[in-house]
Amino acid sequence: MKKYAIIVAGGTGKRMGEALPKQFLKLGGTPILIHTLQTFQAADPEIELIITLPQEEIQFWDELNIWHQNYLEHKVVAGGETRFHSVKNALEHVEEGLVAVHDGVRPFVSSETINQSFEQAKENKAVVTAVLMKDSVRQIDESGNSKNIDRSSLRLIQTPQTFDVELLKSAYNTPFKPSFTDDASVVEAHGHSITLIEGDYQNIKITTPEDLIIAEALLKAK
Amino acid sequence: MKKYAIIVAGGTGKRMGEALPKQFLKLGGTPILIHTLQTFQAADPEIELIITLPQEEIQFWDELNIWHQNYLEHKVVAGGETRFHSVKNALEHVEEGLVAVHDGVRPFVSSETINQSFEQAKENKAVVTAVLMKDSVRQIDESGNSKNIDRSSLRLIQTPQTFDVELLKSAYNTPFKPSFTDDASVVEAHGHSITLIEGDYQNIKITTPEDLIIAEALLKAK
Repeated sequence: MKKYAIIVAGGTGKRMGEALPKQFLKLGGTPILIHTLQTFQAADPEIELIITLPQEEIQFWDELNIWHQNYLEHKVVAGGETRFHSVKNALEHVEEGLVAVHDGVRPFVSSETINQSFEQAKENKAVVTAVLMKDSVRQIDESGNSKNIDRSSLRLIQTPQTFDVELLKSAYNTPFKPSFTDDASVVEAHGHSITLIEGDYQNIKITTPEDLIIAEALLKAK
Repeated sequence: MKKYAIIVAGGTGKRMGEALPKQFLKLGGTPILIHTLQTFQAADPEIELIITLPQEEIQFWDELNIWHQNYLEHKVVAGGETRFHSVKNALEHVEEGLVAVHDGVRPFVSSETINQSFEQAKENKAVVTAVLMKDSVRQIDESGNSKNIDRSSLRLIQTPQTFDVELLKSAYNTPFKPSFTDDASVVEAHGHSITLIEGDYQNIKITTPEDLIIAEALLKAK
């Protein structure tokens, strides 16, 4: 069965307060996005890799790969206005089998998680990695009041989110809604249930300057 | 107005897979709990500090303070069966004014957050620090199915949680319920609304071996 990974890298760097989009920031001397590609290749060299990038970042990425001399075979697709549009564009380059969608700024996903998510998706068609919440959680209503909610019923959702290609393509054949914060929410709106598998607290999303400090520490500890 | 801080340190070290309770683990050569005390003293030397510890850890803590030669004036109270019982015990040593309750394993709280939480509690009586969620969230129902929930309505709750002493004492004058995961949930059950103020992503709770790696990196970056 054919396997694809769509690595979504839409960052413009604004949130990090730096000029360079976050997926290109150096982690142990190597751009974060190259770490993420390497992780997928290490998990299974058969996975076909597709990266979505803002159109204006594609040339820089191509040159960055030459400069780093660690080019891994992959396709680059221009991203869209939102994550939803980027994944939709990338899906046009996916034929059949299984497809994992993964955040470009999550370089610490383990090979076990990647492979388990493909394995489970063969049967369940929509598989999402998740971890338990460690903190208490409150929910805010329309009037601004907050109430405690039972954290044991909640899961923090990570990526990869891995799907049967046919299912994901038909789910994405819909107009964008702001409630589509990830692929699971798109597939759920299409009427298919989501299977959760255990993620990993180390699989952090690098979105703030503190995250980059944490990421350097996690890399050194590996 | 008198100010107290109850620093809750109930860890037995089981979760870290180490013999030493997590509040005593070394961070930059100094026990985590000493960092936390120092942080409150630096924010405002007038804050009266109360630590809750499991009865069997009190002697070790006393000797650890002598050994580290950085003793800060504080009271030690034996903790109870759960966090709820520990805070309840500590409240017997609190008279009037304002009281912040804080996790002993959150050494990175900023002076600004501590002082702002006391400031706001003067007026609002129940003030809790919280941050936005960066990840998508799903909620699991009784049958094991999960659904996407709007993360913009959710807040991750941190400490300090700061209260009018009279309010917190009367809220804690109730039997324990498993839904009491923090002080805000106790005060809410008592019928008082909770005011949220902005927390800080650096104010992490050190509960796993990975957290300790992250904590060392955050300490070095300070």
